[in-house]
Amino acid sequence: MLGRVRTAVAQLVGGLGPAPGAQHPRDSPAPPPAAPGPSACRGPPVGGGFSRPAFLQLTSEELQRADDHAGRAVQSPRESRRRLPWSTGYAEVINAGKSQHNEDQACCEVVVVDRRCSPRCNPDLYFHYWGLFDGHAGSGAAVMASKLLHLHICDQLRDLVDILQDSSPPPLCLPGILPSDALPRFHLEKAVSHESLVIGAIENAFKRMDEQIEREQMTRLVAGGCCALAVVYLLGKVYVANAGDSRAIIIRNGEIIPMSREFTPETERQRLQFLGFLRPELLGNEFTHLEFPRRIQHKELGKKMLYRDQNMHGWAYKRIEEDDLKFPLIYGEGKKARVMATIGVTRGLGDHDLKVYNSNIHIKPFLSCVPEVRVYDLTQYEHCPDDVLVLGTDGLWDVTNDREVADVVTEVLMGYEPNDPCRYTMAAYELVVRSRGVLKERGWRLANDKLGSGDDISVFVIPLGGPGNYT
Amino acid sequence: MLGRVRTAVAQLVGGLGPAPGAQHPRDSPAPPPAAPGPSACRGPPVGGGFSRPAFLQLTSEELQRADDHAGRAVQSPRESRRRLPWSTGYAEVINAGKSQHNEDQACCEVVVVDRRCSPRCNPDLYFHYWGLFDGHAGSGAAVMASKLLHLHICDQLRDLVDILQDSSPPPLCLPGILPSDALPRFHLEKAVSHESLVIGAIENAFKRMDEQIEREQMTRLVAGGCCALAVVYLLGKVYVANAGDSRAIIIRNGEIIPMSREFTPETERQRLQFLGFLRPELLGNEFTHLEFPRRIQHKELGKKMLYRDQNMHGWAYKRIEEDDLKFPLIYGEGKKARVMATIGVTRGLGDHDLKVYNSNIHIKPFLSCVPEVRVYDLTQYEHCPDDVLVLGTDGLWDVTNDREVADVVTEVLMGYEPNDPCRYTMAAYELVVRSRGVLKERGWRLANDKLGSGDDISVFVIPLGGPGNYT
Repeated sequence: MLGRVRTAVAQLVGGLGPAPGAQHPRDSPAPPPAAPGPSACRGPPVGGGFSRPAFLQLTSEELQRADDHAGRAVQSPRESRRRLPWSTGYAEVINAGKSQHNEDQACCEVVVVDRRCSPRCNPDLYFHYWGLFDGHAGSGAAVMASKLLHLHICDQLRDLVDILQDSSPPPLCLPGILPSDALPRFHLEKAVSHESLVIGAIENAFKRMDEQIEREQMTRLVAGGCCALAVVYLLGKVYVANAGDSRAIIIRNGEIIPMSREFTPETERQRLQFLGFLRPELLGNEFTHLEFPRRIQHKELGKKMLYRDQNMHGWAYKRIEEDDLKFPLIYGEGKKARVMATIGVTRGLGDHDLKVYNSNIHIKPFLSCVPEVRVYDLTQYEHCPDDVLVLGTDGLWDVTNDREVADVVTEVLMGYEPNDPCRYTMAAYELVVRSRGVLKERGWRLANDKLGSGDDISVFVIPLGGPGNYT
Repeated sequence: MLGRVRTAVAQLVGGLGPAPGAQHPRDSPAPPPAAPGPSACRGPPVGGGFSRPAFLQLTSEELQRADDHAGRAVQSPRESRRRLPWSTGYAEVINAGKSQHNEDQACCEVVVVDRRCSPRCNPDLYFHYWGLFDGHAGSGAAVMASKLLHLHICDQLRDLVDILQDSSPPPLCLPGILPSDALPRFHLEKAVSHESLVIGAIENAFKRMDEQIEREQMTRLVAGGCCALAVVYLLGKVYVANAGDSRAIIIRNGEIIPMSREFTPETERQRLQFLGFLRPELLGNEFTHLEFPRRIQHKELGKKMLYRDQNMHGWAYKRIEEDDLKFPLIYGEGKKARVMATIGVTRGLGDHDLKVYNSNIHIKPFLSCVPEVRVYDLTQYEHCPDDVLVLGTDGLWDVTNDREVADVVTEVLMGYEPNDPCRYTMAAYELVVRSRGVLKERGWRLANDKLGSGDDISVFVIPLGGPGNYT
């Protein structure tokens, strides 16, 4: 599988057309009933360089329109074209000029997991997958992740095809378990759940994806990094994996259930400070791991200033020493908080080449590519057609809070029949339009005349009726 | 102040009597109306070596009875003696033989904070204080912390006496604030709340306490370490600081509000693994920072075993290498989980000399002395006489869960008039009796015939009516 992923990357980055081998692997089971079109596990939909998500099926004319910073036309899957799994709704819009292209990317697939080598004793395993990737400093990492992350997840699950479908606890050791009398000294055994195997598979898939971007960044031009928000639906459970500042919420019967949290210099302050404290060489003699509420002036040496150390939640005064005059590792508040004055998100993929401006200090050691994975058991609740999972990049959440998003979704869905499959795309469309706003003399403005989001905005609205209910 | 603390320690550890200077500092304001007896800030109630909490005022005969592992008589403040602030209830019992002495300690004081040097422009500041200290590997650290931690908190608050009583935001820099036009480049200023200054003061007090124990351990015999749970009531707010596996809950109108969480190898797994990963030399070539669900046998080399790395929540399979045969840094489950096969709590004071058995590997780098501080605003809610804050060492919580504790408290309090000050001690007494159980042929047994706690048990029941309400 990794070989196939590598082939796909070569084509993707080099801009070559798809190879037959990548499209038709040796072992391609029939897709599950609800899975439309070809299963993604047979090879990524490769294409040349930058584009918009394949599922939008944009013509070159539409693509040009999608890339227009002035018009900022909202893009959605056309009603007449292939429908997304579960009738998922999607919409996106380009930024107001902050970067040449829309650096968000998205993916929506049904992926069949082919066994690695074990004998077939269970049905094939497949998962539904949605991914949002918010790129920065270039679109390369986001494009690559949007085409490949689900294949890495697939690869990590290949050892687990039979284990996950077996009701007994996972074996601690492969192959097989030693008979218990062979383990007289080791009576202490930890039970590991099936769920935690899937979480581990997703976590490791993010790591492998990040390593692959690193390899590509060394040899080819894969620019920048990206936040990644990925959703896997597998065997009745929804796994929401987040690395960055995108966000996922479930709206169930009008109630909001947060399914992710954001990873920023503020929320990860202590992890970053702890690393800077243990490995001061990573701070390059330019930064201090201590936090101060503002920059310190040289003439303030010897006075007492408020500070926070890596193991503190509160603040205290300390006497200012020479070392405290260095720039703080974490500085700024809210959306302006930065790691080493450079980056405002602390988890994601890529950024291997990112350095502090005009220096040789690498940022990557402070960034984590590991997502936090939250699990939602779809079988534990009877879902109605208005219950949805909303995924959005920060372009959405910067100007529209959870409650407002829930209200817009509910309002739009009420305007359509429960079995109308286009209602979820209409909800996504409305969320993007309302967060972008309308172009006025003083820029893009929301209905309340506040500034609309000038960022790229991408939104999935996923109905929770489950596979087959709203296909 | 630190000088005074040092003098007090010398007397405490050396077993000398109190020095006049320690009892009557130069600057002793009148105690606040609700504060009974001498303010603790005037010097600790020092005494020779091991004893029981001073507020129990035990006679030597009673002390002997309290130390009897066979009878396990429950100790409480006598009705006829000095009442604790707020009519706080307290009870304790010795263990069933696991250590020579009761290694729990407790403290309850009203502490006046004397200014460091600033001119007096506000009333004096004082705080109410309750502390529980659960010692291990000796009683030295717990005894020391019970006599001194509140003085360190007092010391950390001395700079803040006027700042905390001023309604304007705390100055970022002392002395005074530079005029804003002197700071043209530094317009970015973080607002810091009064509350976070108190949290910072408590956090740093724990650090200073730990450093002091370290100094004493180098020169005198101060054995072991201790978990510390400290409560500070200051200017309308209750600060609950926890470092270890003791627990605090508020029972309000029958509802349970958790006010702490436990710090154990399981709850702090990732912090510990991260440290072991970044500083492998701390593992002494004996331990691996990876977690495995059981020990690996040499003959399993090359097979695949479930594991968790420092940045994973889930589990995955990895091929077993030579390095994986080392003992896991974190091993065991629940109460049996241990750091480097040695200790079952990961925060607390002391333990500077603790090493892995039969090795030169120090445990202390993996332990944190910094508490988590939670804040409860007493003024935000009208409290009735049955609303209480319960503090207990793990001897209580190991056999009695939050709900059972709340039910016992409610049941006991209902049996007394709301203004009967002894009702809180009766509740504490009942909690200890029920968690200890009754001595039967097969050891100490609870009402349901399960094993009672053989550990030391100590409990505070603190009414939340506030100072003056239930004096």
